[in-house]
Amino acid sequence: MSKKFVLDPFGDKYAHRTSSMLSSEIRDLLAVTARRDIISLAGGLPYTQAMNPDMILGLVEEILRDDCAAALQYGPTDGYAPLKRSLVEIMREEGTPCLPEDIIVTNGAQQGLEIISKIFINPGDDIVTEAPSYVGALNSFLSYQPRIHAIPVDEEGILLDRLKETLEGLSGQGRKVKFIYTVPNFHNPAGVTMSTERRYGLLQLAEAFDCLVVEDNPYGLLRFEGEPCPTLRRLVESRVIYWGTLSKIFSAGMRIGWVAAPHPILEKLLLAKQSADLCTSSFTQRIAHLYFASQDWRGQVRQLVEIYRERRNVMLEAMEEFLSGIASWTRPQGGLFLWVTLPEFIKTSDMLASAIDAKVAYVPGRGFFPYEGGENSMRLNFSYPEPDMVWEGIKRLSKVVKREIALAKALGMEGKASGRSRTKE
Amino acid sequence: MSKKFVLDPFGDKYAHRTSSMLSSEIRDLLAVTARRDIISLAGGLPYTQAMNPDMILGLVEEILRDDCAAALQYGPTDGYAPLKRSLVEIMREEGTPCLPEDIIVTNGAQQGLEIISKIFINPGDDIVTEAPSYVGALNSFLSYQPRIHAIPVDEEGILLDRLKETLEGLSGQGRKVKFIYTVPNFHNPAGVTMSTERRYGLLQLAEAFDCLVVEDNPYGLLRFEGEPCPTLRRLVESRVIYWGTLSKIFSAGMRIGWVAAPHPILEKLLLAKQSADLCTSSFTQRIAHLYFASQDWRGQVRQLVEIYRERRNVMLEAMEEFLSGIASWTRPQGGLFLWVTLPEFIKTSDMLASAIDAKVAYVPGRGFFPYEGGENSMRLNFSYPEPDMVWEGIKRLSKVVKREIALAKALGMEGKASGRSRTKE
Repeated sequence: MSKKFVLDPFGDKYAHRTSSMLSSEIRDLLAVTARRDIISLAGGLPYTQAMNPDMILGLVEEILRDDCAAALQYGPTDGYAPLKRSLVEIMREEGTPCLPEDIIVTNGAQQGLEIISKIFINPGDDIVTEAPSYVGALNSFLSYQPRIHAIPVDEEGILLDRLKETLEGLSGQGRKVKFIYTVPNFHNPAGVTMSTERRYGLLQLAEAFDCLVVEDNPYGLLRFEGEPCPTLRRLVESRVIYWGTLSKIFSAGMRIGWVAAPHPILEKLLLAKQSADLCTSSFTQRIAHLYFASQDWRGQVRQLVEIYRERRNVMLEAMEEFLSGIASWTRPQGGLFLWVTLPEFIKTSDMLASAIDAKVAYVPGRGFFPYEGGENSMRLNFSYPEPDMVWEGIKRLSKVVKREIALAKALGMEGKASGRSRTKE
Repeated sequence: MSKKFVLDPFGDKYAHRTSSMLSSEIRDLLAVTARRDIISLAGGLPYTQAMNPDMILGLVEEILRDDCAAALQYGPTDGYAPLKRSLVEIMREEGTPCLPEDIIVTNGAQQGLEIISKIFINPGDDIVTEAPSYVGALNSFLSYQPRIHAIPVDEEGILLDRLKETLEGLSGQGRKVKFIYTVPNFHNPAGVTMSTERRYGLLQLAEAFDCLVVEDNPYGLLRFEGEPCPTLRRLVESRVIYWGTLSKIFSAGMRIGWVAAPHPILEKLLLAKQSADLCTSSFTQRIAHLYFASQDWRGQVRQLVEIYRERRNVMLEAMEEFLSGIASWTRPQGGLFLWVTLPEFIKTSDMLASAIDAKVAYVPGRGFFPYEGGENSMRLNFSYPEPDMVWEGIKRLSKVVKREIALAKALGMEGKASGRSRTKE
């Protein structure tokens, strides 16, 4: 009955990683997040407390007064037309050209990743992701059984020489990559931003090897410092499938994302969206539209940037204070996440239970790699906890890490892989 | 790039029907629906004008006052727990046993059909539907490339002898049906209701041939007369995957459906839901929960039943008045739809353009069959247009039909298939 979730057409290499493994990890973590005594650095949650309830109520009042029957009704599969015009405005804020007719509204950007997987990936197809990469994207991709080629990133984004090597290798076997998936701005989970030079390089390789690029840009407007880089869509519109979301600048609970893509692709995505759920909520689309059409949303984004920058700063200071010389970490210029690397003999999946005992949570790095990697890494979120909780959370985490290191040294395991049992799957 | 949508592993039999054909038909129709001068009997739209805007505003006010940050935030993949308790209450109203932990909330019932397709259907797998069957279900199923065995229905639902014949035939070839998909109550599009005897018979066959049953029950509470039949889930819980939706009794615009299923299946569905869109809107789930927890929703359903019964009556009277002796039609005891059969030489797809010229719209029957059938049939909706519009719509439609018949007779085409070109694909 559940053949598709255990099917393994590629042999043992893939056997250790099923969709269910990843998901149960994340679900367990989300369950933990809800416990008030635990400081969660795990989720990717925006700080929704920053939104004014009375303002939202005003929007809803206007919609129900003027447009109630339509707000409660089915809507067009491609999205509520006035909202699309707002989304074009939002993209313009990053200098990305787009027309309303280039857009389909989806149920969050996650739905976009799902329908793009459904359209493009047949079992055994080759796709490229970054390593690490967003776990939700990997889950969607893997459920359609591609071969994922995960290319490492550094502080300037994806390593172009490694990407070129992979594309050449596949090309030599007569194989072609369907798409390259990237989060260029304030990467989830790595926290790094692809430099403008790398962006050009990536698109040149995509051109040379004739593959599409999937640009996932949930955090682009959440820049704390430095100059914005051009979006990939802005550089080469015809080769890029661009995903945006309102989850990080307005509300995740409204479930509104969107895709902007070349029209032949958009038509396929529309069919997949129709099968997937007919349409996105007419009600929440109207609220979102009215918010962006009538409120100072740019001011609200600036406020979020202030809030998140402070928390990022606190997290970086706390890392310096408590984990200097023990761990290394990225220094994100925006977004929600820091990526932390511990000594190789520390397995962050194994350590999670101890961390939760110490009342702090994180996401182990392993889930952000399609098959292997990230065992000694973790993703930390700084957008949701209040600044003093960020500080306290890193303090607690550092104690767990130091104890784990001391234990490994006492057992003579420094310098080799941990012999302890893996997290149950 | 779009291989999956043109892939045809089963030869010519499947070639004439791609997902895109169906969808473009429906999309064109929805576009027509929006024109005010056209009476649309095409959509499956509930009459959302019956809902009180002030009442909804009161619910939203309470949520934003007490729970704003959570309403704007991501929520659990399986759904908002208090809402699940409301859904259990709704199922109890039809006598269907269920616990909150048996339920996953989805983005409308359509998402349920998609994720069940994803989980169960590998290319070439055998599944059973009714003929005709809900077009949205067929679209989801077909996108995963099964072999669909479509079993005719009569006024008492699916024909058990035909079903048995099909199951035996497949069994003889060593093949097994993954699931039987059915809309037992007030069928979309056929308008018929499966008798209690047939329900038992269907479940016995499912037991004998060890296949699952997918019970899609969007209209069960919209009964105009007669005694309710037991849901299939009520009769055999362990073999039935039950889908419900709030679209027809509360709001389609909130996009809330749910599945109740045996737990091993529920776990797979949860993973698929997580990939599909992480979670359903925290905001609309809270509104729905508060509506069912605090308002007289049973009274509201009774009001909808009154409204729809009147419109059904008007449609039946108009059919009698204008199309007696020319067409035959079903007499639904509830729900939203009538199924109309015209003389065999009339092709309703071809006739649609003339109907729209005459300012009335319907859904051609062909789309409700996976590969062939329904060419001389149509689905008519009576829930959305006001009663006088229902009457006028049937009047207009009858003129189109009579003109089409006269034309066919003049061309000597009575008794054979129409030679006119098919709707462009």
